[in-house]
Amino acid sequence: MARRKKIYEGKAKTLFEGPEPGTIVQYFKDDATAFNAEKRDVIEGKGVLNNMLSEYFMTGLNNIGVPNHFIRRLNMREQLVRACEIIPLEVIVRNFAAGSLSKRLGIDEGTPLPRPIIEYCYKDDKLGDPLVAEEHIAAFGWASQQDMDDIVSLALRVNDFLSGVMYGVGIKLIDFKIEVGRVYDGDFQRLIVADEISPDSCRLWDIATGQKLDKDVFRRDLGSLTDAYSEVAKRLGVMPKGAVPMKPTLIN
Amino acid sequence: MARRKKIYEGKAKTLFEGPEPGTIVQYFKDDATAFNAEKRDVIEGKGVLNNMLSEYFMTGLNNIGVPNHFIRRLNMREQLVRACEIIPLEVIVRNFAAGSLSKRLGIDEGTPLPRPIIEYCYKDDKLGDPLVAEEHIAAFGWASQQDMDDIVSLALRVNDFLSGVMYGVGIKLIDFKIEVGRVYDGDFQRLIVADEISPDSCRLWDIATGQKLDKDVFRRDLGSLTDAYSEVAKRLGVMPKGAVPMKPTLIN
Ligand SMILES: Nc1ncnc2c1ncn2[C@@H]1O[C@H](COP(=O)(O)OP(=O)(O)O)[C@@H](O)[C@H]1O
Ligand SMILES: Nc1ncnc2c1ncn2[C@@H]1O[C@H](COP(=O)(O)OP(=O)(O)O)[C@@H](O)[C@H]1O
Ligand SMILES: [Mg+2]
Ligand SMILES: [Mg+2]
Repeated sequence: MARRKKIYEGKAKTLFEGPEPGTIVQYFKDDATAFNAEKRDVIEGKGVLNNMLSEYFMTGLNNIGVPNHFIRRLNMREQLVRACEIIPLEVIVRNFAAGSLSKRLGIDEGTPLPRPIIEYCYKDDKLGDPLVAEEHIAAFGWASQQDMDDIVSLALRVNDFLSGVMYGVGIKLIDFKIEVGRVYDGDFQRLIVADEISPDSCRLWDIATGQKLDKDVFRRDLGSLTDAYSEVAKRLGVMPKGAVPMKPTLIN
Repeated sequence: MARRKKIYEGKAKTLFEGPEPGTIVQYFKDDATAFNAEKRDVIEGKGVLNNMLSEYFMTGLNNIGVPNHFIRRLNMREQLVRACEIIPLEVIVRNFAAGSLSKRLGIDEGTPLPRPIIEYCYKDDKLGDPLVAEEHIAAFGWASQQDMDDIVSLALRVNDFLSGVMYGVGIKLIDFKIEVGRVYDGDFQRLIVADEISPDSCRLWDIATGQKLDKDVFRRDLGSLTDAYSEVAKRLGVMPKGAVPMKPTLIN
């Protein structure tokens, strides 16, 4: 790892140059931040869990033909991904009101939405990732109309699939965030799902009890974050070393 | 049940007039048939399992906004559904080659398909539900172009969701069949998913072992059909009385 060139140090992950051109090594840290990094902590084991879970979800998406950056997991904390030009948007899909939507529009958390609502935030930590409308995205050229169509269809397919995965193990998918990036195959360009899909980027409520199994446990001091993430991993048969049994096994 | 008027006696289900206009009671029988009813048997408990599992999948689809006929389960063998005009097509979605596709095109069972393939069979038992192309559907007026667009988008959403449900519990969704029906809300008409979604209408292979957990167990005499269906129900936390524990519990 010493020889690898660091490309970017983020809040939850560090990016290194990958072994082949066009690849990146994503290292999952144990750092947790919330409220634009005003609240921060180190949660032992979180990086391992997110690395395994993101692998699990990206592999499942790949199986159904939703293109994404995941290539292969390298070890407990790192995965090799395809480098892409990140579209500077956080793409949020909401099935039930929660978090900032609840606050902004005065809708009780957990209220079912009339249909999935897609929101875009402009990715800029200094500005606190402000909400933007498609109007801003078009005017500032962050994404073209074709990009936006592709982003919507990627986001809705991820939502249908991930809702299914969670439903199967007794969890309600309240909302989630993805990032999307551009890759080039020769002259042909297309968008793929990038970054991570994990309990850091989803809201997950146990169907039977309403218990939160996501980063809100950290944001709101509701108990052990790794216990929550481990519960998700356990139900899905994704068992990382440390927190839970030893050998990484995929699905019973 | 004695007072209810029978509308239709099918191979696996019987339809009765429902309590309110526009509703139907679907009674799930234990009868199993295959190869256009050339092979038949009575499998104790199958009806109960399919009733519970179809409720489970239809409820999940309803949660994500995929419209379907399910209203509520009435008892262990019956569910209330919205009556619709069934489009006379079996809509098959295939992710991996199997069954008739493998035979017809000489592709080994289990081979991943380049993308999901949607097939249509004309629903007619006397003709053995023959495969048709969109050309036949248009020429004979079985469905309009708008209907076909809606059918494709329903079928693909069911595929994404159901693939997710199965992936979450270690099962590969090889293929499945749905039926689609027309309902009227005043002047407005739309298509909804009807009939059933169950191991009778899906091919489900255990990811780890490749074991078949669907009606092929009956078609090919591979063991106990109710054991297979119960395994699916158990993984999903859908526990029907009789075959498996008493109270419907949701996953650990
Ligand atoms: N496949 C990829 N190619 C290039 N950049 C990526 C890819 N996937 C994720 N990224 C970027 O890597 C960074 C991940 O680190 P993270 O800790 O989440 O950063 P941040 O603090 O900016 O959210 C993000 O800036 C994200 O946009
Ligand atoms: N919501 C509905 N409204 C009207 N008919 C329905 C509905 N759902 C399913 N059906 C029809 O009910 C019958 C179900 O019984 P089944 O045993 O599967 O019959 P079959 O032997 O014709 O396959 C099918 O013919 C199916 O098309
Ligand atoms: Mg980030
Ligand atoms: Mg039938």
